[in-house]
Amino acid sequence: MKNTLGSSVCVTLFGESHGAEIGAVLDGMAPGIPVEEDFIARQLEKRRPAGKISTARREADPFRIVSGVFEGKTTGTPITILIPNGDTRSGDYTRGPVRPGHADYTAAMKYHGYEDYRGGGHFSGRITAALTAAGAIALTALAGKGIRIGTHIARCAGIADRPFSETEREIDTLNGMNFAVLDEEKGEEMRRAIEKAAAEKDSVGGVLETAVCGVPAGVGEPWFDTLESLLGHGLLAIPGVKGVEFGDGFAMAGKRGSEMNDSFALEDGRVVTRTNHNGGINGGISNGMTILFRCAVKPTPSIGLKQDTVNLREGREEELTLGGRHDPAIVHRARVVADSVTALVLCDALAARYGTDWLRKEE
Amino acid sequence: MKNTLGSSVCVTLFGESHGAEIGAVLDGMAPGIPVEEDFIARQLEKRRPAGKISTARREADPFRIVSGVFEGKTTGTPITILIPNGDTRSGDYTRGPVRPGHADYTAAMKYHGYEDYRGGGHFSGRITAALTAAGAIALTALAGKGIRIGTHIARCAGIADRPFSETEREIDTLNGMNFAVLDEEKGEEMRRAIEKAAAEKDSVGGVLETAVCGVPAGVGEPWFDTLESLLGHGLLAIPGVKGVEFGDGFAMAGKRGSEMNDSFALEDGRVVTRTNHNGGINGGISNGMTILFRCAVKPTPSIGLKQDTVNLREGREEELTLGGRHDPAIVHRARVVADSVTALVLCDALAARYGTDWLRKEE
Amino acid sequence: MKNTLGSSVCVTLFGESHGAEIGAVLDGMAPGIPVEEDFIARQLEKRRPAGKISTARREADPFRIVSGVFEGKTTGTPITILIPNGDTRSGDYTRGPVRPGHADYTAAMKYHGYEDYRGGGHFSGRITAALTAAGAIALTALAGKGIRIGTHIARCAGIADRPFSETEREIDTLNGMNFAVLDEEKGEEMRRAIEKAAAEKDSVGGVLETAVCGVPAGVGEPWFDTLESLLGHGLLAIPGVKGVEFGDGFAMAGKRGSEMNDSFALEDGRVVTRTNHNGGINGGISNGMTILFRCAVKPTPSIGLKQDTVNLREGREEELTLGGRHDPAIVHRARVVADSVTALVLCDALAARYGTDWLRKEE
Amino acid sequence: MKNTLGSSVCVTLFGESHGAEIGAVLDGMAPGIPVEEDFIARQLEKRRPAGKISTARREADPFRIVSGVFEGKTTGTPITILIPNGDTRSGDYTRGPVRPGHADYTAAMKYHGYEDYRGGGHFSGRITAALTAAGAIALTALAGKGIRIGTHIARCAGIADRPFSETEREIDTLNGMNFAVLDEEKGEEMRRAIEKAAAEKDSVGGVLETAVCGVPAGVGEPWFDTLESLLGHGLLAIPGVKGVEFGDGFAMAGKRGSEMNDSFALEDGRVVTRTNHNGGINGGISNGMTILFRCAVKPTPSIGLKQDTVNLREGREEELTLGGRHDPAIVHRARVVADSVTALVLCDALAARYGTDWLRKEE
Repeated sequence: MKNTLGSSVCVTLFGESHGAEIGAVLDGMAPGIPVEEDFIARQLEKRRPAGKISTARREADPFRIVSGVFEGKTTGTPITILIPNGDTRSGDYTRGPVRPGHADYTAAMKYHGYEDYRGGGHFSGRITAALTAAGAIALTALAGKGIRIGTHIARCAGIADRPFSETEREIDTLNGMNFAVLDEEKGEEMRRAIEKAAAEKDSVGGVLETAVCGVPAGVGEPWFDTLESLLGHGLLAIPGVKGVEFGDGFAMAGKRGSEMNDSFALEDGRVVTRTNHNGGINGGISNGMTILFRCAVKPTPSIGLKQDTVNLREGREEELTLGGRHDPAIVHRARVVADSVTALVLCDALAARYGTDWLRKEE
Repeated sequence: MKNTLGSSVCVTLFGESHGAEIGAVLDGMAPGIPVEEDFIARQLEKRRPAGKISTARREADPFRIVSGVFEGKTTGTPITILIPNGDTRSGDYTRGPVRPGHADYTAAMKYHGYEDYRGGGHFSGRITAALTAAGAIALTALAGKGIRIGTHIARCAGIADRPFSETEREIDTLNGMNFAVLDEEKGEEMRRAIEKAAAEKDSVGGVLETAVCGVPAGVGEPWFDTLESLLGHGLLAIPGVKGVEFGDGFAMAGKRGSEMNDSFALEDGRVVTRTNHNGGINGGISNGMTILFRCAVKPTPSIGLKQDTVNLREGREEELTLGGRHDPAIVHRARVVADSVTALVLCDALAARYGTDWLRKEE
Repeated sequence: MKNTLGSSVCVTLFGESHGAEIGAVLDGMAPGIPVEEDFIARQLEKRRPAGKISTARREADPFRIVSGVFEGKTTGTPITILIPNGDTRSGDYTRGPVRPGHADYTAAMKYHGYEDYRGGGHFSGRITAALTAAGAIALTALAGKGIRIGTHIARCAGIADRPFSETEREIDTLNGMNFAVLDEEKGEEMRRAIEKAAAEKDSVGGVLETAVCGVPAGVGEPWFDTLESLLGHGLLAIPGVKGVEFGDGFAMAGKRGSEMNDSFALEDGRVVTRTNHNGGINGGISNGMTILFRCAVKPTPSIGLKQDTVNLREGREEELTLGGRHDPAIVHRARVVADSVTALVLCDALAARYGTDWLRKEE
Repeated sequence: MKNTLGSSVCVTLFGESHGAEIGAVLDGMAPGIPVEEDFIARQLEKRRPAGKISTARREADPFRIVSGVFEGKTTGTPITILIPNGDTRSGDYTRGPVRPGHADYTAAMKYHGYEDYRGGGHFSGRITAALTAAGAIALTALAGKGIRIGTHIARCAGIADRPFSETEREIDTLNGMNFAVLDEEKGEEMRRAIEKAAAEKDSVGGVLETAVCGVPAGVGEPWFDTLESLLGHGLLAIPGVKGVEFGDGFAMAGKRGSEMNDSFALEDGRVVTRTNHNGGINGGISNGMTILFRCAVKPTPSIGLKQDTVNLREGREEELTLGGRHDPAIVHRARVVADSVTALVLCDALAARYGTDWLRKEE
C-alpha cells in the first residue's frame, strides 16, 4: 500500500508539482548496467510538452543522479534521480474550487487538507518525469538482454493509427519519434485534432498500444501476479489511464474460442504461436511471443471551458474557469511513461524469476 | 511475486484441478465478522457449472473451514477453507500436446515439466471455487459496513445487457440470480447463443460489469496503488480476463474533456458528482460515488473442434481434438469470481486505510 | 503485516491449538525438489513431546500434503500441508484468568475477545508442527545445493553444552538426535534439570545455537534486509524466543576491534576468514563462512505453581493454578523449529538472489 | 528483499559515503504531523562525531526536505530528505585489500566489483544520517500520541551503566544528552576507555538499551510479524549491531518460569504486569507496559593496527594498515539510530493496526 512499484526491482516516486524537486529511487537494479545520461535526457524530452499541442510549461529537466551509479554504471544499490522544479508559478493555483476530473477532491478526502494542492501536488503529471528517468535505466537494462519495448498512439481524438506489422523494426522507428505513430499521415491528422480541441479550450483522449519483443517464455505467476496483473497494476497508475487490455482484449469478448485460441507450431525447433490474439501471455505467463497491450487515456481534465464544481473551503457550489497552462492532450506524452512502466515491471518480473544479476549484460 | 493477493487483508490460493483438495487462506480479516456457511455455499453454487451451458463436471463443493473461525465469527487469525476435489477423472488428461489458449505450454516453461498437468493443475478455473469461498467472507464484512457489490453480464456472444440504472436495488437483484443480467430477455438470448456455440463444439466470451456502492471517499494511493491498480491487479488474475476498464474506460479515449469531467455538486451537504464517467475514482482515489468497471472475458479456450498444436514431449507438431468436459462459456460463472476479487481487494484497501478493526460491524 | 514469512519463498501458517486442523502453505519453492514424507515425519517427531521432560500430549502428527506436490516432487505451485488436531481436550481450558507469560491478554486486546482462546489458539506452540513440516521441504532443497543446517542446545537450565568444533560433521550427528547436544553427558545433566523443574511444577529455558554451512558469499541486502535482519525476523517469531545474536553477538560488545575483526586469507584460491567472530556475515551479507547464531528461549510460561493474574471477564484480580499438560522446557523441541525457520529464510534469500529455479538440484 | 523498511509506513535509504548526496524517502506517514527542522538538526547532531572519541570527519549535515512537507506539516505523500556529502576525501580510499570486519569483501561478491567502494559506499555508517533524519519525523509523530523512546549506553568497553528505574523521566533526560548514560560517572569512565582504545589504534563495542513508553496493548502479529520480529529486523540492519534481546533476553534462558512470568494485576482499572521480564511483549504483541530491548554493538571494524587480509584485485594475501579517519567507538552515535529505527518500526506497526490517520495528533 505504499507509493512503490515492484518487489525485486522497485521504484519509489516522490515530489510535488510546485515543490523543490521531484525524483525517483530505483532499487534492486542489477549492478553493471550502463547509465547513459544522454538516453535519459532523450526520454525526458519525449515526455516534455512541445509546440501548440502541449502546455506552455517548458522545462529542460536537468536531472541529477545522486546515488547508485559509479563510473557510469549501476552499482546494484538504490539509484536516486532528482529533477528540480524550475518553472513553477504557484500564483496560478489557490486552494479553492476542486477541479472536475482531477484529484483535488479525493486528495482532500485522503489527506484532510494537508496536501500540497498547488498544481495537483503529488498527483501532478509532472511526477511522471521522474518515472521516465527511472524507466530509461530499466529500458537500457532490458535492451542489453535483447528485450525491446515500443508504444504508438493507436488512437487519438477518434483517429486510428495502423496496427503493428513488422513489430521489431517499428519499435526502433517509434523510439526515435516524439509523436509516435506508425502512419505519419494519421499522426498529422491527430495533431490537427488536438490543436482544434485546444482552440476550443477543450481536450482529447486516446489509446496507446505497446509491444514488447524478446521476453522469454515462463515469466509470471498463476495467482495473482500474472504478467497481466503486474503490467496492469503499473499501467493503471499512470495518470489518465482508465483501462488496459492485452492481446485482442475487449474484442475477444465478442469472438469464438476457435478464433481466439492461438495455435502452437514449431519454427526452427522453437515453439511459437501462429497468431497472437492472447498478446503473448497464456495463463498469466509469457509464452515467448510479442507481448501486446493497449491503455485507454482519458481526455486531459484541465480544460479552459467553464465548469460546475464545489468550493470545499466555503462549502458551496461554484463555477470554475481555469486559467494557466493546460495540455489539450497527454496521450502523446504518456506514451514514454507507458514504455517506462512496462520496462520497470518487466525488470521486476525478470529479476524475480532469474535472480538479481540476470539483467546485467554479459560482455 | 507470490501467489497471494493483498497486503493488509490477503488471500493465498492453493491446489490443483486433480489434487486432493483446493483451498484458500484468508488472512488479516477483522475479528468478529459473522461467517455464514449458507452464504458461502450460495456463492459457490453461483460459480458452479449448471445445465447445458456449462461443463458436465458437477461438484457440490462441500467446503470445510478449519481455522480462523470460532463460534461462528472470524477470530482475526488466518481463515483456511478447504474444498475436496470429488469428481476428478484423471484419465481424461495426459501430458501430451499443449492445448492452445491454455497455460499448458507456459506452465511447462515455468515449471520445467514438474507441474501437475492434469486438468490444467494449479491454473484450472477450478481454483476459483476457493477464491469464491474466501470472497464470500469479504462480501459479508463489507455488507456490514454498508458496501455492496454486484456484477452483471454486460455482454455475451455479441448480445448486450442494458446498463445499470438504479444501481443499489439492481445489485440486490443480481445477487439473487445464477445467470446475472439486468434484462432477463437478453439473458435468454445469451443462453441460447452459448448453447449454439456448445453445439458447434465452440465457445464464446463476454464482458462483466461490476458496481460497488458505499465505499467512502479517500481510499487508494496516488502512486502506484491506485484503486484502479489494486482492482485491476486482482481482476486481471482471474482466468480468462484479458482487459479491465474503469468508468467509461476505452470509450473515454474518443471523447472530449468537457464531456468526461464529472462536475462536483452538493447534495444534502455531501459532495457528489453529477455524472460518473470516471467510475467513482479520481487520481486513483475513491470519490464516494459508485465504483464501476468492466472486465473482458475471452471465450473459453477448451473447445471440441480440431486444433493445431505441438507435442512438447515428442517435439513435433500435431493435431488435437479435446474430449472430456468443457465450458462453452465461463463469463456467467466468472461473475461471482469478479465479485469475490473486488470484495477482497476492497477489504485490503479499507483495512490499510482505516486499520484492521474497521471492517468489524459495530453492534 | 500478515502472518506470512518471506517474499520469494514464503510460508503462511494457520490453525489453532484446538481447531480442526493446523497447516502451512509453502509458496515459491522451486519445482522438482523431492518431497520425502519420511523426512517430514522424522522432523515432526523431533518436535513432538517425549518422555518425562515434555507435555503429556502425544500426537503422531499424521500430516497430509494436499497441493503442490506431484509424483513425489514439488511442482513450483503452493504446497499445502495439513495436520489434524487429534488429541484435544478443550475441557481443560476456559476463558477465564489470563495466564502470565502467555498471549492470552494480548490476544484479547488485539482480537477483542473473538480469538479462539482454547489452548492458546493460534498462538499455541502446536502451530510450530506445521512450520516444521514446511521447513523440512526447505531443508531438503538446501541439502540438494550442499547447504546444511544444525542446531544444538547450547545451554539449558544453566548447564552449557560444548561449542561447535568440527561443524559439518557435528551437524549431521545433531540431525540424528532427538535431544540435540554435542556433549551427551551435558545433555543428560540438562534432562535431569528439566525433570527436576517439572517435579517442582516449574519450567526452565535455554539457548539454541545454529550453524549453517555452504551458503555462498554475497547473499543479503545492506538496508534493511541484511541476512541478520531476515534470520532475526523469523527466529524472533518462534514462541518463547526473546533474543538472537550472530557470531560472538553480545560478547563482542566487551571486546576490541583487533580481537573481533576476522582476517581474510586465501585457501586453495578461495577467500576465507581465519576466525569467525562475525558469524559468517559482514555488512549484512554472507561471506561464505559458517553462519552462526544463537536464540534465547525463555522458560515455558505454563507452570503448575500458583500465580497472580487478572480475570478479564470479571474484571478482577485472581489466583490461578494451571491444571492440564505442560512442558517443563521447550528448548529441546524448539530446536527443530529453529532449523526450519533458518531453512525457510535462506531459501527465500537464495531464491531472491539467484532466481526461482536455483534451489532445484541439478541432476 | 529491497532496501526499504516497513509496509504501511516505510523508509528507503539511498546514497554512498562519497557520492553527491545521501537521503531517505519516508512514505506512508500520516498527514498533518509537524516537521520541526530544529529537532531533525538536533537528532543529526547526536549522531555526528564529536571530540576525541569519534572520527575527525565533521559535517554539519545541512539537510533539505524536498517533498512531502507543506506549510511545516507532513502532507501524507512521500517525504524526501537529502543530505549532501560535504567533506569527502576519496583519496583516502582505493580499491585494494578488503578491510576485515567491513563489507568490502561481501559487497564485491554481491555486486561483482561494480559497487562504489569508496569509504564503504552504500554500507557506510554515513547513511545512518539519512535514517536519523527520517526517524526524527517518526519520533515527533509518536510523541504527539504520547509514545516516548529513549536509549542509553548500557555497556561500553566493559563498563556498565545503571539500568532504567524511573523510565519516563529518564527518557527525557537521555534525549537531551549527546553521550547518553543514566549514570554520568560511568559515562565519563566509558569516554576514557574509548580514548584509551583510540590511543592504541583500536576500538571498542557496547550495548544499547532502549525503552518505549506509551504503546497501546494489542500491536503485533502472532506469526511472523511479532513486535520482536519487526523491531529485531530493523535493529539488526543497523551497521555493527550483532544481537538483539527483549526484556530479560538471554538472561531468561537461565531462569525458571516462576521467575520470568510477569503476573498481571489491576491498577486503576487498567491491566498491568507487576514485573516486566518480557519487555512489554507477550506472544509477539504489546501488552501496554514499557517495551524494553538491548542491541549488541560490535567494536568498530576500522582500526589503525596492522591487519592480515586479501587483495582481491591482485588475488593475494597482504597486510593492511588503515590510514584516514576512524571511530574508536560507534555505540554512542548508534544510539540515536536505534531510537530512529524503533520509531519508524512502531509508526509502521501502529499505522497497520489503527489506519493511516492514527498518528496524526488530534488538536
